[in-house]
Amino acid sequence: MKQQQKPTLYGFHAVRAAWLNPRRHVQSLWITQEALKGFEETLQEGARRNLKRPKPTIVDKRQMEKMLPQGAVHQGVALVVDNLPEMDVQDLIIQAAGDALILILDQVTDPHNVGAIIRSASAFGAAGLIMQKKHAPELTGVLAKTACGGVDHLPVALATNLSRAIEELQENGFFVAGLDERGDPLSSYKAGGRQALVLGSEGEGIRRLVKEHCDVLLRLPTQGEIQSLNVSNAAAVALYALRS
Amino acid sequence: MKQQQKPTLYGFHAVRAAWLNPRRHVQSLWITQEALKGFEETLQEGARRNLKRPKPTIVDKRQMEKMLPQGAVHQGVALVVDNLPEMDVQDLIIQAAGDALILILDQVTDPHNVGAIIRSASAFGAAGLIMQKKHAPELTGVLAKTACGGVDHLPVALATNLSRAIEELQENGFFVAGLDERGDPLSSYKAGGRQALVLGSEGEGIRRLVKEHCDVLLRLPTQGEIQSLNVSNAAAVALYALRS
Repeated sequence: MKQQQKPTLYGFHAVRAAWLNPRRHVQSLWITQEALKGFEETLQEGARRNLKRPKPTIVDKRQMEKMLPQGAVHQGVALVVDNLPEMDVQDLIIQAAGDALILILDQVTDPHNVGAIIRSASAFGAAGLIMQKKHAPELTGVLAKTACGGVDHLPVALATNLSRAIEELQENGFFVAGLDERGDPLSSYKAGGRQALVLGSEGEGIRRLVKEHCDVLLRLPTQGEIQSLNVSNAAAVALYALRS
Repeated sequence: MKQQQKPTLYGFHAVRAAWLNPRRHVQSLWITQEALKGFEETLQEGARRNLKRPKPTIVDKRQMEKMLPQGAVHQGVALVVDNLPEMDVQDLIIQAAGDALILILDQVTDPHNVGAIIRSASAFGAAGLIMQKKHAPELTGVLAKTACGGVDHLPVALATNLSRAIEELQENGFFVAGLDERGDPLSSYKAGGRQALVLGSEGEGIRRLVKEHCDVLLRLPTQGEIQSLNVSNAAAVALYALRS
């Protein structure tokens, strides 16, 4: 079977995290001579963990850039990999034992935003992310670069129907909060236990039906003429508030 | 005197905020027929406030895109404007009466990040932003678009020397916190009063000398393999924690 041959992951942190992820099947590593030294430690760590990994293929900058999207910030490393095995909401719930915070994105699709959200969710120890199958961006390229390795740390599940996903979470003891400008103040919310946090797109917010499934709606304490934050900034603030 | 003739601001929120900012000198408004209806209310509001504003120039999408950087998300509106009058740290301190939070960026220059930071700082009611003159990005284009009108709401001062700017703030009663991964937990900090928050670039953090001028260093409560957030996400969390 012919596998995809173009690198889909690039940039130091994204490549390192995939290289050291035992769930990742890596087909090839493309690396420039200059980047090799900085990647030595990662190669050694992979060997130490007995991961099955290909030999690095040394390429020059021009060859690298021919294979990648224009303007890709590759830092001299790129990987040809298979996508991670697909997960559904039940898989995620089984993994997320005990107190856990799961993030749900409703129509947030911009790869920079989703990437930054995955990075923040990983950093704040979230147990996973749920997106709607139909609207989910690929977890590769600029998204993976922006996530800084987060796509190989944060479990991501795809759901056909987000309202149903919320019900599944609730049936498993999760309390589901939606971020909405007409919600209660975030500071009035007592965080803790099994929680899920729903974020909508910047223009539209959370869709009505999804919103109706939330247990509570919360708003950020913004003021003045500018009321809303970039969605990844809003996600980071809400993650911080719910985790601490 | 010949003024600059190319639009430097574009996108609905950026254009609306500049149009309604009495400190802005607007030379021309370029707008598509399709965007005109959505901008009616802004035109009326400008007239109601007795602002001196030019008549809209109707252009088609192709004309618009010829004048703007490739890929600019203009939403059918663009402005030819003068830059806002330059401010220094003293101007900012005079404006920031009473309890106030001022943000300081040390070598953060990516226009998407600085734009998102300006948007969040405006939304959380910060009193202003200080950047180093030598490294400050232009407050136009994609930065202004990302700031969603924030560049016309948040006072921005340029400083020759950030260590000196911190001293000026301290002399005026500001307590200066720097975000640093080796700092005290953010949650241990008692927010309030006159505060300034220093953020460094993602790779390098705050430069040593600037860091030494801070009254306290604080860290975000991150965990796991991914320890750091995108700088605009980190800024949003710290702004939230310091304001609430």
